[in-house]
Amino acid sequence: MSVEVGGREGLSKGEFNRLVSSGRLISVGSSSRDLRPILVGEGVSTKVNANVGTSTGKCDLKLEVAKAEAAVSAGADAIMDLSVGGDLDKVRRTLLKKIPIPLGTVPVYQVYFESKFDMNLDSILNVIERQARDGVDFMTIHAGITQSFLKSMRKRIIPITSRGGGFIASWMLKHGRENPLYTGFDQILEVLKEYGVCLSLGDALRPGAIADAHDDCQIGELKILGKLTERAWSAGVQVMVEGPGHVPIHMIEQDVVLQKKICHGAPYYVLGPLVTDIGLGHDHITSAIGGAIAASAGADFLCYVTPSEHLGLPDIEDVRQGVVASKIAAHAGDIAKYGDMEKDIEMSRARRKLDWEKMFDQALDPQIAKKYSCLTSKKECSMCGEYCVLKLLEEDK
Amino acid sequence: MSVEVGGREGLSKGEFNRLVSSGRLISVGSSSRDLRPILVGEGVSTKVNANVGTSTGKCDLKLEVAKAEAAVSAGADAIMDLSVGGDLDKVRRTLLKKIPIPLGTVPVYQVYFESKFDMNLDSILNVIERQARDGVDFMTIHAGITQSFLKSMRKRIIPITSRGGGFIASWMLKHGRENPLYTGFDQILEVLKEYGVCLSLGDALRPGAIADAHDDCQIGELKILGKLTERAWSAGVQVMVEGPGHVPIHMIEQDVVLQKKICHGAPYYVLGPLVTDIGLGHDHITSAIGGAIAASAGADFLCYVTPSEHLGLPDIEDVRQGVVASKIAAHAGDIAKYGDMEKDIEMSRARRKLDWEKMFDQALDPQIAKKYSCLTSKKECSMCGEYCVLKLLEEDK
Repeated sequence: MSVEVGGREGLSKGEFNRLVSSGRLISVGSSSRDLRPILVGEGVSTKVNANVGTSTGKCDLKLEVAKAEAAVSAGADAIMDLSVGGDLDKVRRTLLKKIPIPLGTVPVYQVYFESKFDMNLDSILNVIERQARDGVDFMTIHAGITQSFLKSMRKRIIPITSRGGGFIASWMLKHGRENPLYTGFDQILEVLKEYGVCLSLGDALRPGAIADAHDDCQIGELKILGKLTERAWSAGVQVMVEGPGHVPIHMIEQDVVLQKKICHGAPYYVLGPLVTDIGLGHDHITSAIGGAIAASAGADFLCYVTPSEHLGLPDIEDVRQGVVASKIAAHAGDIAKYGDMEKDIEMSRARRKLDWEKMFDQALDPQIAKKYSCLTSKKECSMCGEYCVLKLLEEDK
Repeated sequence: MSVEVGGREGLSKGEFNRLVSSGRLISVGSSSRDLRPILVGEGVSTKVNANVGTSTGKCDLKLEVAKAEAAVSAGADAIMDLSVGGDLDKVRRTLLKKIPIPLGTVPVYQVYFESKFDMNLDSILNVIERQARDGVDFMTIHAGITQSFLKSMRKRIIPITSRGGGFIASWMLKHGRENPLYTGFDQILEVLKEYGVCLSLGDALRPGAIADAHDDCQIGELKILGKLTERAWSAGVQVMVEGPGHVPIHMIEQDVVLQKKICHGAPYYVLGPLVTDIGLGHDHITSAIGGAIAASAGADFLCYVTPSEHLGLPDIEDVRQGVVASKIAAHAGDIAKYGDMEKDIEMSRARRKLDWEKMFDQALDPQIAKKYSCLTSKKECSMCGEYCVLKLLEEDK
């Protein structure tokens, strides 16, 4: 595997090999696809994933492609296709063709879509292999939810919020049998290994309410994920571990420390965390707060949350807002984690000179330059006008 | 002074008196105005301030009143009038008449506007008394920047970003004299005491770039503010202390701890902090991240930042977005500080039942209900449609 990296990613060959061989750093990009892999884990910048995908009620392939493209141009590092409506193979293959960055899936969505409660290990392996052959780069597998949790999760305010986890849990409840992703884990690993697909261990029991954070379900499942991480490593499969969800601020650092300890340093891929449940309509902000704290404490990969979270499917502008909010969180985390403030310093130097073009060059959101292009000719902003403090002090020099 | 308080503010008389007499809790609401004061400091919820005000280039009184009203209905606890354009007395008096929550000002804006470099202690006292007589509830006084900082601040990436501080600094540079707000501090306190105005000790040297955070200027000024806090207490004036600004995540907790220690527990009123300099166009998010961490570490009062920060004057929607982002930060901080998650639990219980009306009732942004009112009739969101995990599990019970 050849990895060309620059900037923060400019690890020495020795460091890179050490981190990869210990499982603390992974290279996401399946062997079936011709694309530059992304590095996720210790020593490299925090990455951002954007979800797209059709729904049962809304299935517009062009729109989902446009969302994915908007996410890419806003700076997303990876895309997940979470489609559950229409021709799922076609949606996925189209995204794989159009999107130049790693693509992830949750295969159990398609298994459930095709087989509902008839799903079994064969139909699961069939879908995983089909998706892997297409070139999917990473897959979320909810192998950590077992029969022992089905009773205790009823005590939660939100028993389960993970959709993939919910499909599996309802199948387990209906049949009274163990999770096939758990019992068939070794066979799943064989397929992932064959196609060079990264495993993302899903947290079916991530808290969906801050009051449920760090309960027995979440921590119990995490312990299983820690054991599955070792089994994946033994099978030669790269692995990251997924995390919450809804977690109050004072528990986030502890959350990251626990994952790193229990999962032996495997990269941590968090959805949020959302630091309050009442930010409805603004959950890109509640999750940017949690994501920034998580990243600064060592989380490696942030799944974006859009303003329409908990309300409906995002539109293109929601996707853009979600990616930018997560990029802010990831960068703010990298400042704390690594001291990466070169761009910040460039921005502030340009700000002092009122050099708008340079400021726009450094801005995390590339669209801002367009929206405020009138500023480049004026050299002053409407906030202070003639009372600009930066200008006042220049006059006195 | 009678203070009626409920919820988190429901302190016992004993606690309230103990906190107020130690200066750790203040009641903002001047004796000249008939309005319910807000409590700021230890033991009570984190409050949010929204800035409005005319500029030299843009002076539309109606628009500024509309912004203030939008801020109030979005949940702001206080408003600051930062006008520097048009008839400043008229703008302020109109806002005082229309706005039912505490109003703050930075008197040196008006002094500079009326006297420019001729300003002196007399013109300063004149404006402070005029504003106090009108009923202004709290005033920012930049008394902590002294001659000793004028040279060292040149070493910063952004020497000064505080507008009030900049007016004072440029006057001090021009005249080679000490800061009149510092030399005349006792006389200023007399006026504030007479009218029951709260003092907000401005941080003229707050960092305007994350690389400048916690430098000698910021910490040196903070030490002076600590001494001025004690002088204000001796004079019987309630006081809070203002803070940054631009501060990277890993320094925010330390920032709050330092302020509380150096300023003897006086309430901390922070602007942001913004956790990166490159969030241009999204600084309500960069500051919500910093504000939430600051509040969770003990900051008491958050000044909002809008998406148009560093770009221009906010419009009404920017104001709304700024207030909501700060309310999220304040609440997320209160969850960490006090465990205040009653509303979060109510929201999540309603979410489990797909009870949209109850969800909208708990939402921090009251406008969300209007935007998504179609959901209340559908009982399902377009995200999951028929694959709603919450419904799946209900069927299995």
